[in-house]
Amino acid sequence: MKLRALAETLGGAVVGDGDIEITRISTLESAGAGDLAFLANSRYESQLAATKAAAVIVDAPRSHQLNYLIHPNPYFAFCQALKVISPAPGHRLHPGISSLTSIDPDVTLGENAHVGNFVEIASGTKIGDNCKIMTGAVIGRNCELGNNCLIYPNVTIYDDTVIGNNVSIHAGTVIGSDGFGYAQDKGTHHKVYQIGRVRIEDDVEIGANCTVDRAALGETIIGAGTKIDNLVQIAHNVKIGRGCLIVSQVGIAGSTTIGNYVVLAGQAGIVGHLNIPDRVTIAAQAGVSGTLKEGTIYAGSPQRELKEFKILEAHLSRLPEKMAELKRLKAEVEDLKKRLPES
Amino acid sequence: MKLRALAETLGGAVVGDGDIEITRISTLESAGAGDLAFLANSRYESQLAATKAAAVIVDAPRSHQLNYLIHPNPYFAFCQALKVISPAPGHRLHPGISSLTSIDPDVTLGENAHVGNFVEIASGTKIGDNCKIMTGAVIGRNCELGNNCLIYPNVTIYDDTVIGNNVSIHAGTVIGSDGFGYAQDKGTHHKVYQIGRVRIEDDVEIGANCTVDRAALGETIIGAGTKIDNLVQIAHNVKIGRGCLIVSQVGIAGSTTIGNYVVLAGQAGIVGHLNIPDRVTIAAQAGVSGTLKEGTIYAGSPQRELKEFKILEAHLSRLPEKMAELKRLKAEVEDLKKRLPES
Amino acid sequence: MKLRALAETLGGAVVGDGDIEITRISTLESAGAGDLAFLANSRYESQLAATKAAAVIVDAPRSHQLNYLIHPNPYFAFCQALKVISPAPGHRLHPGISSLTSIDPDVTLGENAHVGNFVEIASGTKIGDNCKIMTGAVIGRNCELGNNCLIYPNVTIYDDTVIGNNVSIHAGTVIGSDGFGYAQDKGTHHKVYQIGRVRIEDDVEIGANCTVDRAALGETIIGAGTKIDNLVQIAHNVKIGRGCLIVSQVGIAGSTTIGNYVVLAGQAGIVGHLNIPDRVTIAAQAGVSGTLKEGTIYAGSPQRELKEFKILEAHLSRLPEKMAELKRLKAEVEDLKKRLPES
Repeated sequence: MKLRALAETLGGAVVGDGDIEITRISTLESAGAGDLAFLANSRYESQLAATKAAAVIVDAPRSHQLNYLIHPNPYFAFCQALKVISPAPGHRLHPGISSLTSIDPDVTLGENAHVGNFVEIASGTKIGDNCKIMTGAVIGRNCELGNNCLIYPNVTIYDDTVIGNNVSIHAGTVIGSDGFGYAQDKGTHHKVYQIGRVRIEDDVEIGANCTVDRAALGETIIGAGTKIDNLVQIAHNVKIGRGCLIVSQVGIAGSTTIGNYVVLAGQAGIVGHLNIPDRVTIAAQAGVSGTLKEGTIYAGSPQRELKEFKILEAHLSRLPEKMAELKRLKAEVEDLKKRLPES
Repeated sequence: MKLRALAETLGGAVVGDGDIEITRISTLESAGAGDLAFLANSRYESQLAATKAAAVIVDAPRSHQLNYLIHPNPYFAFCQALKVISPAPGHRLHPGISSLTSIDPDVTLGENAHVGNFVEIASGTKIGDNCKIMTGAVIGRNCELGNNCLIYPNVTIYDDTVIGNNVSIHAGTVIGSDGFGYAQDKGTHHKVYQIGRVRIEDDVEIGANCTVDRAALGETIIGAGTKIDNLVQIAHNVKIGRGCLIVSQVGIAGSTTIGNYVVLAGQAGIVGHLNIPDRVTIAAQAGVSGTLKEGTIYAGSPQRELKEFKILEAHLSRLPEKMAELKRLKAEVEDLKKRLPES
Repeated sequence: MKLRALAETLGGAVVGDGDIEITRISTLESAGAGDLAFLANSRYESQLAATKAAAVIVDAPRSHQLNYLIHPNPYFAFCQALKVISPAPGHRLHPGISSLTSIDPDVTLGENAHVGNFVEIASGTKIGDNCKIMTGAVIGRNCELGNNCLIYPNVTIYDDTVIGNNVSIHAGTVIGSDGFGYAQDKGTHHKVYQIGRVRIEDDVEIGANCTVDRAALGETIIGAGTKIDNLVQIAHNVKIGRGCLIVSQVGIAGSTTIGNYVVLAGQAGIVGHLNIPDRVTIAAQAGVSGTLKEGTIYAGSPQRELKEFKILEAHLSRLPEKMAELKRLKAEVEDLKKRLPES
């Protein structure tokens, strides 16, 4: 594809040779002839000098003698270029149902289904069109999946789970396992039956080896367009809004509600029965247990507003020095006391 | 079932209409006709006003015109009510052995076994009565499982594992993988063969995608009645006592011994070769590396007693202000020094 | 095997009866007749007095009347003794291919392959000699595995993954899942296709339920001889050097480069786009986001050099007392001010 045509498709402009052929997307560092690279993080600016890329996506032309695809959001343009040039995830899996499966007779499978080897789909489950259920995946009873879902190998989906359209769930993830609920009586932990379910809305992607527990009663919900990384724990009755980003190894405890467009960075933990307002950002490893304000960034465990966290960190770095000052001051005051005439 | 009959079964009393029919258990918020709700957390007290529940489990009657099931431990009563009204986990899986399995001829399977599709049970393994081994689960050689165990889909149990009665292990969990043991010599990490095993006592429940490593030598032990949430790591030679609660994403390093009735909250980490005494509680995200006292609550990383942790946190919140005070005081002392006659 | 012969094999010396027969390796505590125990951690020194071991590996003879195998590195000698006396991992799995598998006709399988039940190996994949692919493992298209690899049950290896010789991957681990990459545009997270791959070099061991994401572009790399514990997250485009030790529940964010012989202790988190120099050690639960120095130990979140971290921790422990001192000092200065004649 010519650079000019690609730029038009992406809504960008060309500076340089628009006739150059683009055949692949690559990084600045490893790009060669025919490769389109991108610069979206200033950390890699210095790689422009040596890149062998046929063209580079940037937000504004640079001084280097290169072909540029100019776009106000280079990372988004790169993302869209990949969609034009590279095939979609799961493209190698053609419609068809392996003979090495167990699909209950009353399962409804939409058009163009791919069902891999050693898959089980249990009684009462309905699956929409164009879904790819990959090797070793297990889908329990009375589940519903929408259209265009990708269920990767060895995923386990417990009974009663409801999943929307365009949902991808990566390998090893478990959806609908029992919530961690026990009632104590005379020193024994009695299991609280978990009779709710999980509901995942449209356009959600969930990474590998995550766990999303079914509700004790009612629903655990993951809202439309929310993206979840690997090894994330979503406890029972958690409700997550739309468009959230939840990074690897985050844990969200039971019955907490997360608003829309919330970002939880890696290894953050959120206690139970909390309300996280819209557009909050939680820094990596933060521990959240308090009341938060909409659109605000928090860090630390227990969490503080980011600006307070940074001020506190700066004070902590100076603490040894300040404690030495305090000691000297104490000596000086002692000295002053001696030098003062008795009152 | 009539409310009165249910109350009698649970050892509670009725205030209101004991003849009302209870057909389901629900939350205060979503309850409708025929639903029994419960109030066990004061956070939800305000939902009493608007609930449409047929009856509510409470510890003492409220002013709202509702039917009440009075019980000193409402959460436990709710737990028991679920057992009366809802079927037990795994109830949909009937005894029977799928033809799509690999069960070694010398495996012993007890009565009423359910063995799902694509299950492997290897040579020498003995499984008790009423066990349900679900789709894709793999049970290695020379394992022993007691009665009434639920092994969920895609669980992997390595060779030699010993599991008691009434044990549930949720999907994706791995029991008996090699411990992380290497001996260094001349810059190379040499694998230490892990020739021990895992032993899980009666009434243990383990969540989804956990990892419990086999011992290097001897046993990794999970004591009777201990409950473990999702994504928890139990390293080799860890010994966990009875009745512990281990919340999601906790990690316990090698050779550590945990007493009885210990609670480890989410994302806490315990270093290796430690002894945690009975009834200790570790707060979420705490990092434990020191000597602890029985029955005590700890928080923070490194851990401090909770009361000290709270005092320190309060001081940290005031640290910027206190450092400003220190600065002013320093200036005042300088000023005093100037004002004092030379001694 | 006689103790003397074993000592010779391990390059150690005997103090005591070299003719005693060693039949097993055990701990000091549980050892009986015929057992070789070892003392590598001074914490267990007191167990020498009561051990019933036939012989004990130590770095120097002790006063207890025991047979000793003297070796400068007792833990390494123990490791090597296990290799002499105990069979290697996977020894129970004989060469042979189960009939309950799906192996594409164009797959290349080396000599002595063991392929367990319900395994899928997809088109274009090449597997070296002496590999054991265990029950339920899924290996995607166009993968390459070297010789002597152990792929444990229910592992998922996505398309295009390259794995060297002598690599072990424990149950439930996922290699090659999509990296967490989305480009935002008008409030929507657009998936960035992840078209790179994972490359794992020789002699790597990866624990259970880990996740290693494929690169967005290019490669995610795990260097030769690196050992990874359970539940570890390696994000897209991470490059890990040789001989690293990465303990359970560590998370490494995208595009970070880790040098050689780096140690990351349990639950540590490393932010993205970072360079960790050679021989750095990161303490448990540390959060790393800054520039580090080669061969240095760091702790805390955000990380500090260990010695600074310890000094800061000591100051924090004294902070309540120091703040009381500050308060008293303030009062004293007020008092001094009153006692001073007006200037």
